[in-house]
Amino acid sequence: MPYRPYMTNASAPLTREVEVLDEKGRSSLISIPAERPLTVYVDKRELVTLMTLGGAPELLTLGYLRNQRLVDSLEDIVSITVDWEVDAVAVQTRNGIADVEARTSKKVVTTGCGQGSVFGGLMDEIEKIHLPPEARLSQGTLYRIVDTIRTQQSIYKQAGSVHGCALFSAEGELLWFVEDVGRHNAVDAIAGMMWLEGMEGGNKVFYTTGRLTSEMVIKGAQMGIPFLLSRSGTTQMGHLVAEQVGMTLLARCTGKHFILLTGKERLIFQTELAEVLRFA
Amino acid sequence: MPYRPYMTNASAPLTREVEVLDEKGRSSLISIPAERPLTVYVDKRELVTLMTLGGAPELLTLGYLRNQRLVDSLEDIVSITVDWEVDAVAVQTRNGIADVEARTSKKVVTTGCGQGSVFGGLMDEIEKIHLPPEARLSQGTLYRIVDTIRTQQSIYKQAGSVHGCALFSAEGELLWFVEDVGRHNAVDAIAGMMWLEGMEGGNKVFYTTGRLTSEMVIKGAQMGIPFLLSRSGTTQMGHLVAEQVGMTLLARCTGKHFILLTGKERLIFQTELAEVLRFA
Repeated sequence: MPYRPYMTNASAPLTREVEVLDEKGRSSLISIPAERPLTVYVDKRELVTLMTLGGAPELLTLGYLRNQRLVDSLEDIVSITVDWEVDAVAVQTRNGIADVEARTSKKVVTTGCGQGSVFGGLMDEIEKIHLPPEARLSQGTLYRIVDTIRTQQSIYKQAGSVHGCALFSAEGELLWFVEDVGRHNAVDAIAGMMWLEGMEGGNKVFYTTGRLTSEMVIKGAQMGIPFLLSRSGTTQMGHLVAEQVGMTLLARCTGKHFILLTGKERLIFQTELAEVLRFA
Repeated sequence: MPYRPYMTNASAPLTREVEVLDEKGRSSLISIPAERPLTVYVDKRELVTLMTLGGAPELLTLGYLRNQRLVDSLEDIVSITVDWEVDAVAVQTRNGIADVEARTSKKVVTTGCGQGSVFGGLMDEIEKIHLPPEARLSQGTLYRIVDTIRTQQSIYKQAGSVHGCALFSAEGELLWFVEDVGRHNAVDAIAGMMWLEGMEGGNKVFYTTGRLTSEMVIKGAQMGIPFLLSRSGTTQMGHLVAEQVGMTLLARCTGKHFILLTGKERLIFQTELAEVLRFA
C-alpha cells in the first residue's frame, strides 16, 4: 500500500445561478462557474493564493507543489487540509521546504489561462527531460480521445468559462477529467493525482481545451507525457519547447481534424479514417 | 505638452510559420503567434518575467507597473528601454519603487489568461473605486462595437491563440486594439496607453475576447471604465466584483446577441434593433 498524505475532500459548489437580461430585455437565470481564492499555507507559512473553481483543491495543491518542484517526495507531505470557511489550504510537511524563500522569489508570469506564476527557472529542467521516443499514438485512438472529450459531461457545457484537462491511457481510455477556471489549475490537479497514484506519464496522453503555450508544454514534459493534445492552437514557444523535449503536439483537434506540429514520428496515420469522414 | 518617459519602440515579429501535417498526412505551413519572455528590470533590479506576443512591450511594461500599483505617477518613470536581444526591458525611475520587496512579495495566481500574478491585496482598492453611475451605453453602440471587433484585422485571424482587448469611446469609436498571448498583457498595454495619454476611463468602453474573471473586472475598475464587454462568459467572482464596484458587465457579445449581467441600468435597450435581426 503506497504512502498517502492525509487529505480532506473539500470540493466546493462549482456553479451558481445569476439573473441576466438578453438583447431583447428578457430576464433569465444562467449558471456561471465558481471562482474562489485558495490560499496555500505550507507549515503555516503563506505561499500563494490560487484562484480556482474548487472541484479538487487537495489535488490542485499537491500538483501545484509538485509542478513548482517545491516538494520532492510524496512522503515529505504529512497532510493537505482544505477549509473553505477561510478559503485556505494548510499543507503540513515532514521537514519543511528547503530554501523556500529563494525558490519562490523568482516570478514568471506566464501565458496560460489560470496558473500564471512559475517560480524559478522555467526552462531549467527541460534539458533533463527525456520523453519515450518509442511511444506511439494511432489516429484511431486520437479520434477516440477527441470523441470522449466531446461527449464528456462538464461544467463547461453547463456554465462555460472553464478549461478542461484530461489524462488518457495510450489506448485512449479516459483516466481522469478535471476542469478549473484556470487550465493550469486543471493540469496541476492532474499532476497531483498522478503523483498520488504513482502513475508514470510515458504511456499516457494529455488533453487540454486550452492553448498549447510554453508553460503547458513544460508541465506536460515535467509529467513525462509524450503526447499533448488540444482543441486550441499553440504558440511559438510552446512549439519550440515541444521540439526541445521531443514531445508530440497535436492542435486543433476537433471531429476528425487535427494538426500535428512536433514529434510527428509518434503518430500512426490511418488516413482511411479521415476518408470515412470526407465522404460521410 | 504632458510629460512622457523616454520609451523605445521595439515591437517584435508577431508570428512565425511552422510546418504541420493534417489528418490526411498533408504537409502545410501555418502561422503561429510569437510567445517570448520579457524580463522587467526596475532600476537594474529584476522584477518579473512576462510572457508576451511582443507587439507593444513598452506600453505593456508601463501598464503592468501601473496596474500593479508599483508606480504612482508617470513622472516617476524616466525611461522604458526594451532590448529583444536579451528579452529584457529596463525601467529607470526617478526615485525607485518604495518598499518594492514587500509590495511584490504577495503572490496571487489568477484565473485570467496571461498575466497571472497580481502582487498585493487583489481586492484592496475595490472599496475606493467609484465608476460613474450616470454613464450610459446604447444597444446600437454596443452592436457597433461588436461589429468593429468582428471586422478588425488581427493576429488572431492570421495565427489564432491570442487574446484581443480594445478601448472604445462611449460613442463606439475604436481608440486602440491590442493583442497578446495573454489577455492580461493586452489589458495592461491598454492601461499603459491610457496612462501615457492621460485618458480617463469614465467615458470609455472596454472590450476583451477573454473571459470576465475577477482579475479582468478589477483591472477594468482600476482603469475607471464602467463598461466591460466580452465575447466570452464570466465567473462567479468576476460577477461579484462587478456588482461591488458597480460595473456594467456584458458577456457573450456576438452578432446581435449578448447577456447583461450587472450594472443593468446603464444599458439603453433598443429592442427594435434585435427585432431587425430576428426577422432578417
